[in-house]
Order: sequence, then C-alpha cells, then structure tokens
Amino acid sequence: MTEPTTTTQLPHDVHPEHHMTSSAMLQDIVIGLSDGLTVPFALAAGLSGAVTSSGLVVMAGLAEIVAGSIAMGLGGYLAGRTEVEHYASELGREHREVQEVPDKERAEVDELLAEMGLSEATRRQAVAELTADSEQWVRFMMKYELGLEEPDPKQAPKSAATISLAYAVGGLIPLSAYFVTDTPAQGLAWSAGITLVCLFVFGYFKSRLTGQPPVAGAVKMAVVGALAAAAAFGIARAVGG
Amino acid sequence: MTEPTTTTQLPHDVHPEHHMTSSAMLQDIVIGLSDGLTVPFALAAGLSGAVTSSGLVVMAGLAEIVAGSIAMGLGGYLAGRTEVEHYASELGREHREVQEVPDKERAEVDELLAEMGLSEATRRQAVAELTADSEQWVRFMMKYELGLEEPDPKQAPKSAATISLAYAVGGLIPLSAYFVTDTPAQGLAWSAGITLVCLFVFGYFKSRLTGQPPVAGAVKMAVVGALAAAAAFGIARAVGG
Repeated sequence: MTEPTTTTQLPHDVHPEHHMTSSAMLQDIVIGLSDGLTVPFALAAGLSGAVTSSGLVVMAGLAEIVAGSIAMGLGGYLAGRTEVEHYASELGREHREVQEVPDKERAEVDELLAEMGLSEATRRQAVAELTADSEQWVRFMMKYELGLEEPDPKQAPKSAATISLAYAVGGLIPLSAYFVTDTPAQGLAWSAGITLVCLFVFGYFKSRLTGQPPVAGAVKMAVVGALAAAAAFGIARAVGG
Repeated sequence: MTEPTTTTQLPHDVHPEHHMTSSAMLQDIVIGLSDGLTVPFALAAGLSGAVTSSGLVVMAGLAEIVAGSIAMGLGGYLAGRTEVEHYASELGREHREVQEVPDKERAEVDELLAEMGLSEATRRQAVAELTADSEQWVRFMMKYELGLEEPDPKQAPKSAATISLAYAVGGLIPLSAYFVTDTPAQGLAWSAGITLVCLFVFGYFKSRLTGQPPVAGAVKMAVVGALAAAAAFGIARAVGG
C-alpha cells in the first residue's frame, strides 16, 4: 500500500529544536498502525452487522490482516527497491550528461541558481565552482535539479517489515474483542470501544510527532475509523439482509 | 492509507523528454488501484477457502472495499490538509526568524551554499543577494533548508476522491467474479484469472509511467497479489476449518 518513505528526512536540519523530524522507523510504524487500526476494525464491524457467528468475523478479519499486511509490506519493499534503482539510473544518466553535454548541464546549473535569485555575475562564479569537480556537479544536479536524495538500500526491507508488523498489530487490536465475546454484536461493542480509544491515543501521538495540534489530530483519527466502520456496517447489512 | 502526494513533481524539469514525471492524478490512481486490486482480491480469495456461500464473500468484499476506500480517501484528505497547515506554520516561522534573528538565518543560508560547494567569496556575494529581499529569502529557506514546496490546498480533496474511487474500482474487479458464479470456488478461479491479468497489465503501465522495466514491474505486481491471496486463503482455511 503506502510506499515506505526513505527520503523524507529534512534535507538539512539546522535548528532541530524547532523543526521536528521523525525517524524513518517511527514514520513506518505510523503508516502501518493508521491502516491496521482502521481497515480491519471497519471490516469486522461491517460483518458484525450481517452475520451471527463471531468465528466468521474473526476468520475474515484475520484474512484481511494477512492480506493487507503482505500487500503493504511486499508492495512497500518493491517500491523501495524501485526507488534505489531509479536513483542509480538517474545518477548514471547525470554522469553521462556531464561528460557528453557539459554546456547544456552548465546552463541547467545556471538556470537553477537564477531561480534561487542570484545575479548574473554571482552565477557565473558559482557555476564555475559547482562544475569544477564532476562528482560535486552530479551531486548538485541530483539534489537540486531532480530533487533526489540517495536512498539507503537497506531501508526498503526494514520499512517493509516495520509497516507489515505495525499493520498486523494494529489490526489485531480491534479483532481481539471478537476472540473473547460470544456474539458479533458483543464483539462489535467492545471492539469499537477499544479501537476508538486506541485511534484517539494514536492520533494524539501521531500529531505531536508531526508538530500538529494533538487533540484535533486525535479526534480526526477516531472520526476516520468510526466513519469507515459505520459505512462498512451499512453496506454489509444492506447486502446481507 | 497512503497519504496523497501533493509535492512529488520534480522541482525543476529542464529536459522533460528524459526525466519522466507523472501527474498528481495519475499517481493517485496508481496508489488506489495498487491497493484496490490486491487487498479485496486477497480477502475474497481467503474467504473462498473457508465458506460455502458466494453471498458471504461478496458481502465481506463490499464491506472491505467501503472500509478501505473511506480509510484511504478520508485519511488521505486529512493528511493533505495537515500538509497545507504544516507549510503555513513553517512559513510563518521562517518569516518571524528572518525578522527576529536575521544573522542566524543568514548563517544558515551560508551553510546551505557551502554544502552545495561554493567558495567563501562567492557565498558572501550570494548570501547578500539571496537575503536582499525578505520574500525571496523566506522562499529560499522553505525550499532548500526545509525541503518544502508550497502544497496546493485544492489538491487534498481531489487526491482523496481519486484514491478512493480508484480503490473502489480496483476492488470491484476481483469481486465481480463472485457476483456471477454459483460457488466461492468458481468465483475464486475467475477472480484469480481476471485479477492476475489486471495486476499484470497495471504493473506494466505503472512501471512504464515511472520509467522502470515494464515486464519486471508487471510480474512483481502479479506476485504481490498472488502471495497476499495465497496467505489469506491459508489463514482463513486454518481458522475456518
């Protein structure tokens, strides 16, 4: 599902006490938990409106968790690999272009500096310095022309595993209520209670992590989960009834 | 689920014939279809291994599509709104800092230029030019210090609707087989056939869009879908049997 974000760190964080940055792993946990807490919860809630067996809700819920966890994890892993390959192929292209059409590439550096707001005289000097060393020149093009940071090749499998696991953990929370209750209706009541509290707490910390108003974030997460569950409940009852 | 990517365009595309860029809408369709084609497919396949009623598979599948579609769409919408608010709050902070601690901000500009590889003499001149106009100065800090591009506030609702719809369309493809077949086993056979072909075709065009080897991308998409479905089938049979 979500592609793991291997290059979301701020490019240059000179006052970390102000601009909050979160580790790649925390971000992956947030991605996995967001979906894991909402979709399996909503699916189980939906089925509760239409079937009489808790066992069926648990089975469908577990199937969803496994399917979602693999789709997110494996999909994310492949997206991460693609990012690594994409970076390598663009890097090769820039190296070639710097060798083969240096004047064109030099004009591109000049254009980027003009966009920043530098005068012609300063640009002339700056272009000469930036293009003096071809490694530095290519690095400049990758970062400022293409907006690409070098992805860590070890990040993709790590991200995939973290997202997958977080999705599964998130999904088991709402589903756990159906393990211990006798009817889907009882399961739904407990599941909704537990999950909305978890979504609220999770939304609170997620917002704090990204520097947003935490209570508003907590309410938003809970509302998304509640709406998804209500819609799934409605459609399952309409189809099943 | 996936946060809509409002700022993924290349920052500066000077040779568009080489570096492929895809529109935000196409990206959102890809995000929605990737998940829509895999997760509902895998869930329905999983249930087919354990229940005897096609109606039940359809009901659970529709509940999943509704739940996933809302979680992705609404979640994406809120993430997009957060991005807009985050940009506005950072912009305000940079404006204040440029007013209140200009020397510190000037030193940051200098540090960024040093990282690019400019000499001290050129930097002195460049810093003077970049900080001459406070609007331009703030824009420079936003883009090069924080790596933030101004998000389009209209993008979040558009992205949310596109992702949601693409997820629903993607999910209805594998599920449609169960509408017209008598048993879950028949439904699964048709669903797997149709979906794997769709995943293959979709993977092909998705890879072409991002400039990756298209056949390898097609195989990868189909493998993710098949593995997710097989795992869901296995767990549902284990729990249900």
